[in-house]
Amino acid sequence: MTLAPIAGPPTPSELDGRLVRVRARMEESDIDVYVAVDPVNVYYLTNFFNFVHERPFVLVIRRDGPLQFVVPHLEESHVRARAVAELDIVRYFEFPAPDGHTWHDRLAALLPRGSRIGVEGAMPLRIAERIPDERVTDDIIDETRFVKTPYEVGRMAHACGILDMGYDRLMQICRPGAMLADLQQDVVGRMMRRTLEEIPHANPLATSFKALVQPPSLSDDPHNFTDAFVRMELGGPHVTLVVGQVNGYGVEHERTVFLGEVSARAKDPFDAMLEGRRRAFEMLRPGTNMGSIDAEVRAIYRRRGYGDALLHRTGHGLGITGHEAPFLAVGYDRALEAGMVVSVEPGIYLPGIGGFRHSDTVLITENGSVSLTHAPETIDELTFPVST
Amino acid sequence: MTLAPIAGPPTPSELDGRLVRVRARMEESDIDVYVAVDPVNVYYLTNFFNFVHERPFVLVIRRDGPLQFVVPHLEESHVRARAVAELDIVRYFEFPAPDGHTWHDRLAALLPRGSRIGVEGAMPLRIAERIPDERVTDDIIDETRFVKTPYEVGRMAHACGILDMGYDRLMQICRPGAMLADLQQDVVGRMMRRTLEEIPHANPLATSFKALVQPPSLSDDPHNFTDAFVRMELGGPHVTLVVGQVNGYGVEHERTVFLGEVSARAKDPFDAMLEGRRRAFEMLRPGTNMGSIDAEVRAIYRRRGYGDALLHRTGHGLGITGHEAPFLAVGYDRALEAGMVVSVEPGIYLPGIGGFRHSDTVLITENGSVSLTHAPETIDELTFPVST
Repeated sequence: MTLAPIAGPPTPSELDGRLVRVRARMEESDIDVYVAVDPVNVYYLTNFFNFVHERPFVLVIRRDGPLQFVVPHLEESHVRARAVAELDIVRYFEFPAPDGHTWHDRLAALLPRGSRIGVEGAMPLRIAERIPDERVTDDIIDETRFVKTPYEVGRMAHACGILDMGYDRLMQICRPGAMLADLQQDVVGRMMRRTLEEIPHANPLATSFKALVQPPSLSDDPHNFTDAFVRMELGGPHVTLVVGQVNGYGVEHERTVFLGEVSARAKDPFDAMLEGRRRAFEMLRPGTNMGSIDAEVRAIYRRRGYGDALLHRTGHGLGITGHEAPFLAVGYDRALEAGMVVSVEPGIYLPGIGGFRHSDTVLITENGSVSLTHAPETIDELTFPVST
Repeated sequence: MTLAPIAGPPTPSELDGRLVRVRARMEESDIDVYVAVDPVNVYYLTNFFNFVHERPFVLVIRRDGPLQFVVPHLEESHVRARAVAELDIVRYFEFPAPDGHTWHDRLAALLPRGSRIGVEGAMPLRIAERIPDERVTDDIIDETRFVKTPYEVGRMAHACGILDMGYDRLMQICRPGAMLADLQQDVVGRMMRRTLEEIPHANPLATSFKALVQPPSLSDDPHNFTDAFVRMELGGPHVTLVVGQVNGYGVEHERTVFLGEVSARAKDPFDAMLEGRRRAFEMLRPGTNMGSIDAEVRAIYRRRGYGDALLHRTGHGLGITGHEAPFLAVGYDRALEAGMVVSVEPGIYLPGIGGFRHSDTVLITENGSVSLTHAPETIDELTFPVST
């Protein structure tokens, strides 16, 4: 499996290969027509990404022939500018519209009577209720996306290279007193500029970054980013996050770091976190039950006395978004496959002490795994000197 | 109706008033329990806003008693930090989870057997299919949001003040050769700083801005913002957009402007756009059928020879988001009411010449309307001198 970064757009044959795999799943599930409205699934099969409020973009996938794409008139030129796949575009004027001119009138005309129609679990009821005939919820495009193509692996490797740069910059400028808003602006600006240098026509609707830091007073609460003025402190644990979607590929890179000193009470939870994380990495290979990885990590944390300090599962999939199925989570009893990309990020959260979590974007290979993001992981390597 | 800007958070009694109105609609629709998952509707009733990927936040509204809120463990402290409403929090550990420990196990335990359960049209099938008993799609929270409270009008007036400042700045710095990315950075940065000065604890998950400019070569394609390096040109029409969500209230401010000179062929479409827009404003009062406003504008455009140059309806609602129901659109046969807030933005789009559109954020009052955004509208006032 090649890891060479790729910055160029997908070819029609790349997209056609994805469609062939989607259609194979349609056949397995005895689905005549699949109707997709999730912007991420539409992007996967067309290279076009957008969401314009209440106006649906509806991709109709039959067992053969070109894709049909019901789009608002307003967006037709945009679709033609970005789409790589062969598309029959069917436009409607607006939402709402008089009877006979609505998006669902256009859609109904494309669906043969008596079809068995597959739809996404993400489909909103207001759209689902417009689909005539038998409707079956089956996330076949989402599942096709689980295993990346060599092209996608190259794109994700490229995206992770941008994040590695952003992480290195964040580590250069982090210091006690540094304010989140300033760190964010510096690091995000650099990642965005690098992206536009390397991909001048990057899709702005599928490109965004965050660079975040939580000081020890907040890092026990992993989603607490509500104060842009928060400042880094002497010591730690600080949890740092550099995440982004780079022209359509979502990746993440997180480390727990210290500034100047490590308090005695932070050492054991950091070490336990590393033990859990290393066990998870050992288990990453095709065939491993994903739920069992999370179960093993939890057993380690319980054994070390941190059984109450978990707030989330061990990991999740990445791909077009930075957060999607499959999941490394108890209750998710499916096997890893080569070509999947997952985060590995078991965390320990201790109010009054802080949070302990590293995360990498990791590719499952034929015989194990390889991380697409790169950074040290030991407490010594992640404790930075403070100039006085 | 007061228009004094308000920057402070809602009181519990403000939120309770909203809940009373939602419950009145539940009673009218014979709904025993309403289940809301749209983050915007949840925010409306709780002041808590978030969306964490596949982990649902489920708000359960019975006919009386406190709101019940099923949330991921990971977010419980965040919910408690932001929520203003009285909430019974019911937490689940993660998604996915083993049987008996899932979010839908928690939800099922809250729903009395045999209830008639109301849900949103925005609800994804993967959530809807977990709701037992009789399910009826009825957007009662969305519809309650149509008519703003005096508090909400004050918040939207405040948000429009931020946009007015951003628009004024954009007009100061626009010039031939100015690059979209630079204009965006300057204007968005100022609007964000002003917001944080005025609302230091503004919710970053409900605060964002855009400042966009389309030169005449792109402005005939109203959603074409795919090139961050595009530059303004001598002449016009440039379409400028300053839009944002200011701590939970979405507003917009758009003008068609010229730099230095106006080509002869731009004058008539600009004048036709103004005629359509003025007719729309004349019709803005309680009782007017919203579809009829769009129909009148279209008739004016047809009469003036621009019947093929429309790409979208005359306007849309604004509120928590910058784009929502109700709609000023043919086919939307409902009456305006005092307290609604809508955009007025009929547009004309001519390939080879450009786009012509102004938009304001407009409050419907007891006897007419008042714009919450402020800028000139004539071609003379919107043609700026160019220093040579």
